[in-house]
Amino acid sequence: MIEPKRDKNWKTQLHEIIYEADTPAGKLFDIILLIAIIASILLVMLESVESIDVKYHSFLNISEWTITVLFTLEYIARIITVKKPFKYIFSFYGVIDLLSTAPKYLSIIFVGTHALVALRALRLLRVFRILKLARFLGASNNLTTALKASRAKISVFLFAVVILAVILGTIMYLIEGDKNEGFANIPKSVYWCIVTLTTVGFGDIAPQTPFGQFIASIIMILGYGIIAVPTGIVSAEYSSQGNSNKNSTSEQPETKKVRLNSQSCSNCLKSDHRDGAQNCYNCGEPLHNN
Amino acid sequence: MIEPKRDKNWKTQLHEIIYEADTPAGKLFDIILLIAIIASILLVMLESVESIDVKYHSFLNISEWTITVLFTLEYIARIITVKKPFKYIFSFYGVIDLLSTAPKYLSIIFVGTHALVALRALRLLRVFRILKLARFLGASNNLTTALKASRAKISVFLFAVVILAVILGTIMYLIEGDKNEGFANIPKSVYWCIVTLTTVGFGDIAPQTPFGQFIASIIMILGYGIIAVPTGIVSAEYSSQGNSNKNSTSEQPETKKVRLNSQSCSNCLKSDHRDGAQNCYNCGEPLHNN
Amino acid sequence: MIEPKRDKNWKTQLHEIIYEADTPAGKLFDIILLIAIIASILLVMLESVESIDVKYHSFLNISEWTITVLFTLEYIARIITVKKPFKYIFSFYGVIDLLSTAPKYLSIIFVGTHALVALRALRLLRVFRILKLARFLGASNNLTTALKASRAKISVFLFAVVILAVILGTIMYLIEGDKNEGFANIPKSVYWCIVTLTTVGFGDIAPQTPFGQFIASIIMILGYGIIAVPTGIVSAEYSSQGNSNKNSTSEQPETKKVRLNSQSCSNCLKSDHRDGAQNCYNCGEPLHNN
Amino acid sequence: MIEPKRDKNWKTQLHEIIYEADTPAGKLFDIILLIAIIASILLVMLESVESIDVKYHSFLNISEWTITVLFTLEYIARIITVKKPFKYIFSFYGVIDLLSTAPKYLSIIFVGTHALVALRALRLLRVFRILKLARFLGASNNLTTALKASRAKISVFLFAVVILAVILGTIMYLIEGDKNEGFANIPKSVYWCIVTLTTVGFGDIAPQTPFGQFIASIIMILGYGIIAVPTGIVSAEYSSQGNSNKNSTSEQPETKKVRLNSQSCSNCLKSDHRDGAQNCYNCGEPLHNN
Repeated sequence: MIEPKRDKNWKTQLHEIIYEADTPAGKLFDIILLIAIIASILLVMLESVESIDVKYHSFLNISEWTITVLFTLEYIARIITVKKPFKYIFSFYGVIDLLSTAPKYLSIIFVGTHALVALRALRLLRVFRILKLARFLGASNNLTTALKASRAKISVFLFAVVILAVILGTIMYLIEGDKNEGFANIPKSVYWCIVTLTTVGFGDIAPQTPFGQFIASIIMILGYGIIAVPTGIVSAEYSSQGNSNKNSTSEQPETKKVRLNSQSCSNCLKSDHRDGAQNCYNCGEPLHNN
Repeated sequence: MIEPKRDKNWKTQLHEIIYEADTPAGKLFDIILLIAIIASILLVMLESVESIDVKYHSFLNISEWTITVLFTLEYIARIITVKKPFKYIFSFYGVIDLLSTAPKYLSIIFVGTHALVALRALRLLRVFRILKLARFLGASNNLTTALKASRAKISVFLFAVVILAVILGTIMYLIEGDKNEGFANIPKSVYWCIVTLTTVGFGDIAPQTPFGQFIASIIMILGYGIIAVPTGIVSAEYSSQGNSNKNSTSEQPETKKVRLNSQSCSNCLKSDHRDGAQNCYNCGEPLHNN
Repeated sequence: MIEPKRDKNWKTQLHEIIYEADTPAGKLFDIILLIAIIASILLVMLESVESIDVKYHSFLNISEWTITVLFTLEYIARIITVKKPFKYIFSFYGVIDLLSTAPKYLSIIFVGTHALVALRALRLLRVFRILKLARFLGASNNLTTALKASRAKISVFLFAVVILAVILGTIMYLIEGDKNEGFANIPKSVYWCIVTLTTVGFGDIAPQTPFGQFIASIIMILGYGIIAVPTGIVSAEYSSQGNSNKNSTSEQPETKKVRLNSQSCSNCLKSDHRDGAQNCYNCGEPLHNN
Repeated sequence: MIEPKRDKNWKTQLHEIIYEADTPAGKLFDIILLIAIIASILLVMLESVESIDVKYHSFLNISEWTITVLFTLEYIARIITVKKPFKYIFSFYGVIDLLSTAPKYLSIIFVGTHALVALRALRLLRVFRILKLARFLGASNNLTTALKASRAKISVFLFAVVILAVILGTIMYLIEGDKNEGFANIPKSVYWCIVTLTTVGFGDIAPQTPFGQFIASIIMILGYGIIAVPTGIVSAEYSSQGNSNKNSTSEQPETKKVRLNSQSCSNCLKSDHRDGAQNCYNCGEPLHNN
């Protein structure tokens, strides 16, 4: 049952480095990847600034190519080391990895197409892979559970906010519509109302009639008051979740806390295996523990 | 006591479809209604945008008529299937249903009257019927109770905010009134003060004297600090409510959790009957369970 | 010990009406007073609007005189019915009552003095008497305790926010000071920083250099993050206070909940006596229960 | 073991005054220091206002010299009275004390150098010493613990907000970039997005296309909804911390609450010793209790 260390071929070792973060090599890989993703985002950002793009065009171009090649190598390595490549290719991260690498190659064929910037921007979605690293901080576990538990309630709340904005926006349109360009039609008024209810308050549109300002005051106080609702939901959910954790340890001893590691199964890509687990809890594939 | 299924005539069946959401037909009806309401709101919105209204006037007009006819049919069906039609007609939703349907018919008689837009806007109130659908998400029950419990406290708080705004607004009027058009009178200053206390901050009015900016800073920090109050109320209320739920199940076993369904009594319109209930808990009228 | 009802002379009866809210006459008096205070505030507000003052000057003047006379009568009645008049005269409400009544009389002597508007604005402080009425809602008791408990902590927090604003404002002055009129000196920069940290964001001053916008982004995210602190304090204080209430009833049976009424002692002005109490809990003076 | 009072020489006495706040002399010193720090900050602020600097230049200059001399004396006194002077000199407060005193002396050598203003601004960091005084309010203890416990989680949250801002900012750049100067490049768009997500809303940049305003509405509602997350974290952390305190006193009687005083060891500078402690808990150096 116990797979000896010497059995590992280069594929298995590469899989460990790329998909896991428990070995020193795996950690190093993750940190390099993190830096590369941030660098690539900074490149996309800087390239969009005309004055910088004019000055440092060739430098930005070379950096872009370097990172594109790096991402390509990583993409190929991920496909090779996974047992079921197609599962990876059509997974969420697989598609993003491809889309975030492709634009530079496509730019050779379609020179100067503006739409490629849009495609390049998709690279930003790779950032979500960084979030996986948040686990290092050991912080997001409880948080994620609390957020998931309160998601439905917050959705209902935000939906109610939108309805409120539609109704109040229409009222503002009826009051200010004639005299104030900013409330010329209902969609604009609703937009202003969302700006106000959420306490953002750009000020590009503002009521000018006394009655409009009176209604605006009510909207603002409303927005100030109801911000309490989502906050109340999350904090209650979060603390009740903490309580139920405590209860479960004292009353139901069968729920144990176990250390999970970040390695993922080379067969089904499931991660969060228990430390010391010999087989994948999902597909039974043997795991390569150190 | 148990009413057999075959006894249902078309009226009872229609009542079930319109007023309940537990049968497939009832769910379908609710979803169609939801789509129709959202469509009608979008129509009102788009019609208010001049450039769109000019271009697609006839299309908008036909759509409006289609939805008006749909709403009319629904209104008639609701009256027919309810046992006490007048109770429905003069109920909150009954009045809104009528008012949201009437404007298009009235527009034939009063051509080009601007006030009809105002009437049409009332249709937005129908959206509240959608909120009833929030129950599908199973989320708003606890939330509603927590909000109801904290309503009085939040009202007191918002009232205190208004008083604070009046006092601080008057102080700002005395400081900035002479030099700054935006603080020309007390109502304007109070309006600005509400804009600032609620952290909306449009910026159309802003203090210009150093002393005015100093007082404004205090107002802002105050607003930033006291936003904690309603939030604290709701979250404490919400979590204490959760606690009392827990307590009631462990200490007082007579408070049981029961499944409620969305059907409403054909006699008194009360909904939230227990699953399997044979008679309305309010008026004793037999219910038509599936 | 029990004082019979027929012993009440007109002074005692008037005292009951003015200082208490438990008898129908006392409630009526409070409601009339509330309306008069709100009316007087509206008058001060409307008078400050030039266009309204020009049009309705004589009406506003007469109304102002009417309310001033009413307030004068109330002030005299309060002095007469209290056993220790000087204690009332030099109490917080006594001083406010005098100051809120005096300006109109003084305006006869000092015609057209602008400073009188400032004095008249003091009338707004009478509004706090309305807050006493919040008790009717039975809401503010727990709230007040929670706020008192968290006052020191929130003060420390707001003090830290001010220090943060001073430091960050100075940094912004060093970055933007040369190029941007809005950051011309440190006080202005600190003012902007408070506007930003509290998420008010007027926009009359905004960073223009890329580096300034970068620091501004950090300030904003900081302000967005630390708003959690006062909220956390109040909600924890509030819910822990609720818990300790529960504990005290279960563990320390000597702490009982008693009904308090709004009457106040005619001798020492202390209110919140227990229902059915025969003597003032503070000075022992007999109370006039109904 | 008990050190008699008469053994205290002037060095020990001075140490007590400067580093502790339990004796009347120590409290007086702290209050004078607090006033001096605030005065020095006000001086830096006022000097930056050109109109004031022109008018009162010599007064500001003399005041600045007075405070600089005071701070110099305090710095020397701190070095003399501490047993290990180098430990103090290279400690956080030691470096700040030096940097906040030096600029005025340097201004004699480097006349009119703008960079000295930057150095002088470092004096603001001395303010943190005031925060030590917050202990007087007895408020920040629990608060600090709760903040430390939730720091990691809030960091993850703020990091997620930044990623969200980058993605949404890029989307806004693609939508508004061509028509709106405010979204001319991605960094600017991301800046705007942070302004909006944090509900600050300056309004110097605002979307102008209907689709841009639609996306902006979503960003605002998102920002309004997710502000609940850090708040929920802190309040849950804070209340759970309160609970664990309660539990620890009831279940683990070995954790006792002891009174700490503000004196600090003259050898290792550690403070928070128990009242009545004879030796430093850190280095064993005898303490000079009164």
